[in-house]
Amino acid sequence: MEAKQISKAVIKRLPRYYRYLGELLEDNVERISSNDLSKKMRVTASQIRQDLNNFGGFGQQGYGYNVKYLYTEIGKILGLDIVHPMIIVGAGNLGQALANYVEFEKRGFKLAGIFDVNPVLEGIAVRGIEIQMISDLPFFMKENNIEIAILTLPKNKARDMAEILIENGIKAIWNFAHIDLDTPDDVIVENVHLSESLMTLSYNLSQYRQEHIDDEK
Amino acid sequence: MEAKQISKAVIKRLPRYYRYLGELLEDNVERISSNDLSKKMRVTASQIRQDLNNFGGFGQQGYGYNVKYLYTEIGKILGLDIVHPMIIVGAGNLGQALANYVEFEKRGFKLAGIFDVNPVLEGIAVRGIEIQMISDLPFFMKENNIEIAILTLPKNKARDMAEILIENGIKAIWNFAHIDLDTPDDVIVENVHLSESLMTLSYNLSQYRQEHIDDEK
Repeated sequence: MEAKQISKAVIKRLPRYYRYLGELLEDNVERISSNDLSKKMRVTASQIRQDLNNFGGFGQQGYGYNVKYLYTEIGKILGLDIVHPMIIVGAGNLGQALANYVEFEKRGFKLAGIFDVNPVLEGIAVRGIEIQMISDLPFFMKENNIEIAILTLPKNKARDMAEILIENGIKAIWNFAHIDLDTPDDVIVENVHLSESLMTLSYNLSQYRQEHIDDEK
Repeated sequence: MEAKQISKAVIKRLPRYYRYLGELLEDNVERISSNDLSKKMRVTASQIRQDLNNFGGFGQQGYGYNVKYLYTEIGKILGLDIVHPMIIVGAGNLGQALANYVEFEKRGFKLAGIFDVNPVLEGIAVRGIEIQMISDLPFFMKENNIEIAILTLPKNKARDMAEILIENGIKAIWNFAHIDLDTPDDVIVENVHLSESLMTLSYNLSQYRQEHIDDEK
């Protein structure tokens, strides 16, 4: 219930708060004032106070925030207090890179299986997990209560695979394929479109260059 | 000059238009109406007309848009008509996965070199490019007019490396490290914070579950 009172704009900023609070915890910081957090995060102290007020009155004036408490509460809102069993579908370079990224496990994202459509990859182990074929997917998903699929297949295969995942009851797809997936309302999709991010960088680079040339005129 | 007339909101949508227009081109579609594009992209036709009006009067009523022309013009705005020499700094799993991703080359992002701080990796070839040590970076950047660095080092090494890149005149950093970089105004930074994307997915999953439980009550 608690989560519902929080606005979407605040939610979007939560992962960044979570990251900074995690770093403070690592540095054994117990309390931090909104002013100090503001300097670190480069947002205004009043923005921080407003955002964190959503988590109750734990930032008393003059006392600052209890770092561990806030970190834990934000973690709960983000659903990081429960284990999310997940699979990677697409064991190419990106899929294998994500499989090897252990930080996700620390946040409760537990990699249970890796799947691919290419028979050459069958049985090859990535971080101790053998790559399986899609024919094994329905049974595996049920048996392991898989919630999240990381979709790293090329775009020409990704759409069909998304349908298979949905048929087998996937709850959320973290989509790295360069397509927009058609999914029913009860399947969460979070896209990581790397090409589009690189294009945004390229746009900003062109724009800066153009302004710079204009300055010289 | 042309780019400056376009609002930021439109710019944010351009990579997606570019992707859809690219797919239409692959399918040999020469013209498309805003209504048909609207159905494909699931944005309103009036939004599309407004956005694409920035590129002149090439969407005459009844004739639709010239796909190739629009694709080319949007590509220019995004800076994809020129070659951007880039390097990867951090030859771990993610760095190697990005090195192997050939789609970037098609858009003019030319991978010229791969660097790491780990001497064990020196000389190992990824897609034919030998991994070099950071000591070679200043000369290499100058010699090859490197504009963009893809930063895929772990966060404890990324900040120092960003400084070295900036000292050597990098123009833009595509940052995959889970930190916010301190950079001067003339260095473009585009962040890909994968953990934060996964947390957003997790939040939406929790939220959906909670609403669903509420429904059942």
